Amino acid sequence: MERRVFSLADIQQMDKDFRTQLINGLSGYKSANLVGTRSAEGLSNLAIFSSVVHLGADPALMGMIARPFSPTTRRHTVENILSTGFYTLNQVGADFFAKAHQTSARYAEEASEFAAVGLREEYLGDFPAPFVGESLLKIGLKLEEIVPLAINGTQLIIGSVQYLSLPSLALLSSGHIELEALNAVAIGGLDTYY
Amino acid sequence: MERRVFSLADIQQMDKDFRTQLINGLSGYKSANLVGTRSAEGLSNLAIFSSVVHLGADPALMGMIARPFSPTTRRHTVENILSTGFYTLNQVGADFFAKAHQTSARYAEEASEFAAVGLREEYLGDFPAPFVGESLLKIGLKLEEIVPLAINGTQLIIGSVQYLSLPSLALLSSGHIELEALNAVAIGGLDTYY
Repeated sequence: MERRVFSLADIQQMDKDFRTQLINGLSGYKSANLVGTRSAEGLSNLAIFSSVVHLGADPALMGMIARPFSPTTRRHTVENILSTGFYTLNQVGADFFAKAHQTSARYAEEASEFAAVGLREEYLGDFPAPFVGESLLKIGLKLEEIVPLAINGTQLIIGSVQYLSLPSLALLSSGHIELEALNAVAIGGLDTYY
Repeated sequence: MERRVFSLADIQQMDKDFRTQLINGLSGYKSANLVGTRSAEGLSNLAIFSSVVHLGADPALMGMIARPFSPTTRRHTVENILSTGFYTLNQVGADFFAKAHQTSARYAEEASEFAAVGLREEYLGDFPAPFVGESLLKIGLKLEEIVPLAINGTQLIIGSVQYLSLPSLALLSSGHIELEALNAVAIGGLDTYY
């Protein structure tokens, strides 16, 4: 099979857009999540993240990478998490991924992103951050730590799972989650959905 | 739709195995990667990781989470990376995921894991760490930093991409990688392959 091989020098000399797509694609299939937050003033925000990672089960911890070159919405996400201490992860389903992807566009600062992209803002129990009504897997998180990664200015945001809601049908007696039952999409690179 | 809801107290009181499966499943679809390393004495090692994350494109950086409660093979992985400074990520294809999954078993300390699970140990160019011959997407990495996560004793291992090999057919002119052309598998939780 014919192969393409790239050295470090090749990678450094690549066209910027080509390199961005290629390197983003190296981590393969990823899950797409909408991060829901609310500012101290009560304005809600949504941003799509594809770099969510499981950090441990006891305590139950999730990590996500926030990039320094993120669009406005992602900066708002980090600011809101820092000011309120809470956020939600909402797995993106095949029925609303087009709306979810729109959150990476820039919206006016004074409007709720839920309304802007047409997704339902939902509050569950007394959890302070907004969930996405359409999502089948909803996770409420409390900020535990933000670890700055000096090497490139990204941040690893670590949260503990405080609240969890999923369809009964998707949860097996072993604890396994049936991703098919969640209608979950997988992402490749920055913008390819499966 | 009937839903199951869990509070923090519910999660803390869960049966340990149930919680491990459930919390591992929260991050949704993930790509499976075999990490190839070689000890200072020249003994090669393979371990499967599902927590690989893209950290940035310029410089091209990948992160992966190593757990403190990892089996022997994963401890070897971290020791080898520390002692040699190099490692490989090899995307797991549908044709060899059963062999790849066996690397999470414990093997005798003096034998190569490649031979033990029946995968081909391959050296490319002058890259010092072993690649998996059967893998269609092969990434050679240089250790840049190990970030200890004090909250639960895990480590974020950060490497820079030094070498990259993939089928010409899988690489589009935009830089996008066609994951279907790589025959890549996606993992849910700890042990469910798609």
